[in-house]
Amino acid sequence: MKPSGEDQAAPAAGPWEECFQAAVQLALRAGQIIRKALTEEKRVSTKTSAADLVTETDHLVEDLIISELRERFPSHRFIAEEAAASGAKCVLTHSPTWIIDPIDGTCNFVHRFPTVAVSIGFAVRQELEFGVIYHCTEERLYTGRRGRGAFCNGQQLRVSGETDLSKALVLTEIGPKRDPATLKLFLSNMERLLHAKAHGVRVIGSSTLALCHLASGAADAYYQFGLHCWDLAAATVIIREAGGIVIDTSGGPLDLMACRVVAASTREMAMLIAQALQTINYGRDDEK
Amino acid sequence: MKPSGEDQAAPAAGPWEECFQAAVQLALRAGQIIRKALTEEKRVSTKTSAADLVTETDHLVEDLIISELRERFPSHRFIAEEAAASGAKCVLTHSPTWIIDPIDGTCNFVHRFPTVAVSIGFAVRQELEFGVIYHCTEERLYTGRRGRGAFCNGQQLRVSGETDLSKALVLTEIGPKRDPATLKLFLSNMERLLHAKAHGVRVIGSSTLALCHLASGAADAYYQFGLHCWDLAAATVIIREAGGIVIDTSGGPLDLMACRVVAASTREMAMLIAQALQTINYGRDDEK
Repeated sequence: MKPSGEDQAAPAAGPWEECFQAAVQLALRAGQIIRKALTEEKRVSTKTSAADLVTETDHLVEDLIISELRERFPSHRFIAEEAAASGAKCVLTHSPTWIIDPIDGTCNFVHRFPTVAVSIGFAVRQELEFGVIYHCTEERLYTGRRGRGAFCNGQQLRVSGETDLSKALVLTEIGPKRDPATLKLFLSNMERLLHAKAHGVRVIGSSTLALCHLASGAADAYYQFGLHCWDLAAATVIIREAGGIVIDTSGGPLDLMACRVVAASTREMAMLIAQALQTINYGRDDEK
Repeated sequence: MKPSGEDQAAPAAGPWEECFQAAVQLALRAGQIIRKALTEEKRVSTKTSAADLVTETDHLVEDLIISELRERFPSHRFIAEEAAASGAKCVLTHSPTWIIDPIDGTCNFVHRFPTVAVSIGFAVRQELEFGVIYHCTEERLYTGRRGRGAFCNGQQLRVSGETDLSKALVLTEIGPKRDPATLKLFLSNMERLLHAKAHGVRVIGSSTLALCHLASGAADAYYQFGLHCWDLAAATVIIREAGGIVIDTSGGPLDLMACRVVAASTREMAMLIAQALQTINYGRDDEK
């Protein structure tokens, strides 16, 4: 891929250019595999609950991405969904670290519901440098690089700028826990936003693609309890570079490992959402 | 009422072939208008509630579709969303009748959330003959003709065949009423399905496209209270021709005017959903 004008402005296209280009190429290759697998029969296993699914393709794609990146960047570290499910620790050190969700929307993937993405984030010194998200079925490539904007298939992204909750389209996801107490809290949060007269609440089954909709101005806010750092890492760069806000549900700064988030087109909107929510405790990614 | 002369002239391709082809061409033209309008500023008005939106484009597209069809088929009748909102009666007689939603997913359309469709259904002697639904942003054309199968961009559609609710992806929509009692019932129905261990519940903001996902096997069930005959007419033919079931939430036969529906990949699944639901009363389309 040829560097764009903004890249030429930065000397040598920026220190992580090679990593970014590798992420783009791997996301596209992974997308091809996922699109093909969507047409085939799948063996499905469960993880933390009957609704927390994994397939052979999740493992295959994660192994492909990590093995290629490890060969090219042997000193880098990795945090990835299926490795974490198998007991690998999720610790974000100062080392260059790849944060990977091979298939975001596995339940959609299992059902061939066409809202499925590959997500590859990259952090250095605990700061997110870039994010690449590929919506496999619609062939939309979302990218964000710190200080260089966010794009979808080459078109610059910009959040809506909406500040009024009563004019907002809000996105969320149910989360993997389905015990009665967690479900009550999930539904109660949705009720609070609908009482606050949000135009609508959407649940599309992919955190990363919901966050991409926010970055592209097609929605005004997103919140979730029970998502993971690999759902958030890439999307956070994309939203911030599109002018949006990503914070903790407490209203404080984002904690990538806290399994909860509010993202919005503006700080006002983010704070309105954060204030409306009751906390659902999912623990932390780095304490599992 | 007898079919018009031009319809009788095309017996080889079925009596309503010309009507079907007109619906396809109009859906594609309407889609072009909607795609262009998605990039422009919109003036938004509200109808029955602050969440029940309408734009100039809804009116423009509905007027285009009806005026063209009226010119070609002057004896036909029309039931259409914006005409109904302006007080036109929704009565399904034995006459050939077009049932039209110019923009399904108006709230999505207002937000540029890319899940927006044109829906054109056609009934004769109160029986649905064909349905045409065009997903404008993804350029997917769904069609179903009684006795001739259902297709998306030429590919035949088939429902999943799933019978087990604990393996189901279920779709629903919030509906336009947002008073506290209605919201409680909406959330309680979602809770019942999640307690029954459905894999997931999705809310995408377009009834017709949710029903098209069901027809294509990407979801296993759909239910809603508060939708209208123009959300259901075209999709019902498509689902039935894809092998699926469309019934009333009571478990009895579909009543197109009853503002409620359960659709599913199998009768077993439809009955499980119907049994799980509490009724939300939205009145009838033909009594407004």
